[in-house]
Parts: sequence; structure tokens; C-alpha cells
Amino acid sequence: MARASRSVDLTQVTEWNGGIATRKDDFLAAEEPLEIRIGENPLSVTMRTPGHDVELAAGFLFTEGLVQRREQIVALESVTGDNDGKRGNVVRAELSSEALPDFEKLRRHFFAASSCGICGKASIDAVRSRLLRIPNPDFRVAPNLLVSLPEALRSAQDVFERTGGLHAAALFDSGGKLLIVREDIGRHNAVDKIIGWALLNERIPLSDCVLLVSGRGGFEIIQKAIVAGIPVVASVSAPSSLAVQLARELRLTLIGFLRGNRFVVYAGDDRVARS
Amino acid sequence: MARASRSVDLTQVTEWNGGIATRKDDFLAAEEPLEIRIGENPLSVTMRTPGHDVELAAGFLFTEGLVQRREQIVALESVTGDNDGKRGNVVRAELSSEALPDFEKLRRHFFAASSCGICGKASIDAVRSRLLRIPNPDFRVAPNLLVSLPEALRSAQDVFERTGGLHAAALFDSGGKLLIVREDIGRHNAVDKIIGWALLNERIPLSDCVLLVSGRGGFEIIQKAIVAGIPVVASVSAPSSLAVQLARELRLTLIGFLRGNRFVVYAGDDRVARS
Repeated sequence: MARASRSVDLTQVTEWNGGIATRKDDFLAAEEPLEIRIGENPLSVTMRTPGHDVELAAGFLFTEGLVQRREQIVALESVTGDNDGKRGNVVRAELSSEALPDFEKLRRHFFAASSCGICGKASIDAVRSRLLRIPNPDFRVAPNLLVSLPEALRSAQDVFERTGGLHAAALFDSGGKLLIVREDIGRHNAVDKIIGWALLNERIPLSDCVLLVSGRGGFEIIQKAIVAGIPVVASVSAPSSLAVQLARELRLTLIGFLRGNRFVVYAGDDRVARS
Repeated sequence: MARASRSVDLTQVTEWNGGIATRKDDFLAAEEPLEIRIGENPLSVTMRTPGHDVELAAGFLFTEGLVQRREQIVALESVTGDNDGKRGNVVRAELSSEALPDFEKLRRHFFAASSCGICGKASIDAVRSRLLRIPNPDFRVAPNLLVSLPEALRSAQDVFERTGGLHAAALFDSGGKLLIVREDIGRHNAVDKIIGWALLNERIPLSDCVLLVSGRGGFEIIQKAIVAGIPVVASVSAPSSLAVQLARELRLTLIGFLRGNRFVVYAGDDRVARS
């Protein structure tokens, strides 16, 4: 059923409504494994929605700390997997020699954080130990600009409207202009696709941008935003306690429940401009 | 801010409403790392909402295939972590000698599936290669019973109402009676807590039960349900393409968009009783 490089699959389902069953066509958000390799070494397998895979891989390498600069990625290409023979479910990276990881150390790290390669205690300490800079302390955003962002995201969204099954992330500039929107079955993937796009287009740090995510603001989203230098993260839903803790420690502005005319500031109040 | 064994944290936030800012107290869904050890060997670290940690660990060991039967878990206890000194962020398991894993093999497996220890290509093949039995083919559920489940879950939910930040999972018997509900920042953890409870209480396989999850029906939820022998999984939102594919392959009934009087059957139509 699933085919590479499609973000939506069409399938037959049975809809029940008030006790009446009807056969109909329905769209599904595509979910397929993507393997990221460094040279011939497998680095990770992530379940993602096909599309923008090279950006996803670039974002993953950057937000996970494997590369710090664009130039450390010598080459990045979508290749054919060994097993499935389908083009598109493997991205191969060539890194500059200074960026080549210690695979044994990586293996231990990912093993420790196995339930989610981008979280876990090892990663919390890793985030802290990376001595990340506080995102742009001079950036300000007006409340009336913030409340306009969800509608801008909705009008730009493509797949979500059809399937209801994807997370979206969008990047806005300081004037509220939508720069890029990405959708994925995994919220962290949608964010990695955006940050990977920025890295490949030499736009890091994103110090004058607001990141909006369609679901919860979890720890891993804050971590990725901080690596990319994003000063303000907004979500339409609730953040977790650890997301708030990390945002407060690292002085990122974290906004939740951005709906209608209302939002809640969980961290970094000073960037929300009072008129 | 965060403290072990609390599923909710209280914090001060700024609420903006129609351009007016107000300081207020707010509840956050707690998110903390839980390390699962087998003896002294760290197995995984997962970000979870504290509470029911022993059930979570039991469910994880079972749905990930480390143990197949209750008796293989000799002991399971919450212990003090080495680093944080806080009781409650480590669960230590003692397994019977036949269930003791090959740690080197595990390490390679988790490394390959690093972005999410419970998914990835390795796990898809693993699910298939485990030759799981088709969940109870004789189980039937009536449409009017199905549409009553979300309200039953909502009335039983505790933390979600206060924070909006947690996923919930609930298990119902064939008469629609709620057996257990669990909430967690990670949907797969809420499901593992339920399945762990069932394992520890000798209720596996759950062949006469319906599992309801508050969010999306993803691949990993289907995989866990199949391991526990659950014949029907329902979600209030959309499933992914891979979830539908796996449910169809393994003959599990998968229902999405269960809201009001409506739902959509994506797989296993035959278990939805037509009147």
C-alpha cells in the first residue's frame, strides 16, 4: 500500500455514522521508515512521512549535535535501501573528517536513550553540556502577531486537512511572514525538516524567527529549537513540565494554548512585547 | 520544579487574552526520564509521566518481546537512581535465566531503531517475525457500544482535564465496562502501563477487550496491542498508513475518528457487528 515519496495514501474504509455503514475512500498520512547513514554506517531509523528526506536528515544531524556547521556535511543524498529496493527510504551523508562521529560512543548513547533517540536522561545532560547560547535576547514579538499565526499555518497546510493525521511545524519571521511549513507523522521530524532546510540554506541561527508547532510543546522540540537559535516556540496545545523547565533554564520563550485571542506564556515572558 | 512520582506540576504562567496579560497558576503534565534496568544493565531510558512505573516497565518488557510470560519477571522494583538520588526514576527488573537478553544483540537492535526504540524497520520485521497470532477472530463489538467509549474515558480521566497535556489509553471489556485508564505524556507509555497492569495481573491475552487511545493510532500502538492479544483498537483521531497496513496484515480491527455517532473502520471490518 505505502509507496516511497508520497505523503498521503488512498485506501478504502468503512464509515459508520448513526448506525449506518458506508464504504468510502479515505486518505491516510503516510508513515515509512527512513534510515540515515553516515558513509556505510547506519546511524538511525526513524518513522517519518516521506518527503523532504534530505532536509530531515540534515536537521537530525544538526539538532542531534553530529554536525555544528553546514560545511561539515560534504554530501547528502537519497539512495536505494538494501532490503526494500525502493528508492527513497535511505539518506546517506558524507561528513567532513572533523565531524565523523565515534560510532562506538554513539552506539552507547543511543542505546541509553533507546526509547527515543532524541530524549532520555543522556540527552538532557547532553543539551546542558553543549553550553548552548541563549537565543536572541533582543527579539520581541507582539501579542496580536502571535494570535495570527495559527490561521496562517492552517491556510498553508496541505496534507493535514485531508488526513487529520499529521503534525505541522511552521517558521515565521519577525513580521509574521510564513517562511516554511512542513508536515510529518512525527512532530520532531516536522521540526527537523524545517531546521534542516535552514541549515542547507545557510540560515542558521534562526534568531529572528518564531516556530509554531501544531501539537504539544515537548522537551525534544525545545531542544531542537535551542540548537537552531530560535528565540520563540509556540504551540496550540500544552507543554510538558520538562519542556518548561528547559525553556526557563535556557531562556527560550515558550508559548502554549495559542488559540483564538488567547495564549499562555510558560517561559521567557520578556520577549512578548507589552504595548 | 519537577518531582518524582507526581503526574502534575503546578507553575506560574502569564495568560494573554484579547491583549490583556494576567499572572496565574497553571498545571503542567509532568515529564521525567525513567530508566529501565535488567539487573545492573541499563536497558532503556524513556520520557514518561511519573506514576505506575512498575506497570510501565512490565508493559515495555512484554511488548518489546523481552519477556513472553509473567513468570519470566522474577522481580520488578522502583529504585533510587545513581545520579539524581531521587527515588522513582529507575525501575530494576530481574528476569529468569531463560529470558535474560543478549545485551550485545539488544544494543545493535536499539541502535538501529534509535529514533524510537519501539519502531523502525528492525521492529517492523521483528513484529512480523514473531509470528504473532491473529487476535480473537470471534470477538464482536456493536457500533452503539463503540460510540459510548470516548465519553466513558473522559469521565474517568484525571490529569488531562487539568493540563490538556497528556495522552490517555483505556481498556474496556466486551460489555463496554471500563477496566483501567492510564495517562502519560507518551501515548505508547499509556498503552504500556495498561498492558503491564494486565501482565502483572495475569490477564494476558486481552482477547475480549477494546483499547481506546486519545490521539492517533500509530504503528507502535498496533504492535503493542497485537502482542497483548487485543482484537480491537479505537482512536479518536487518524491512524497512519503503516498502522493500517500492520492491522490488516495481522487481522486486528482498527477504528479511527471515534467521535459523536461516527467512526471509521480501517481494518478488520468483520468484528464490527452489523445489526
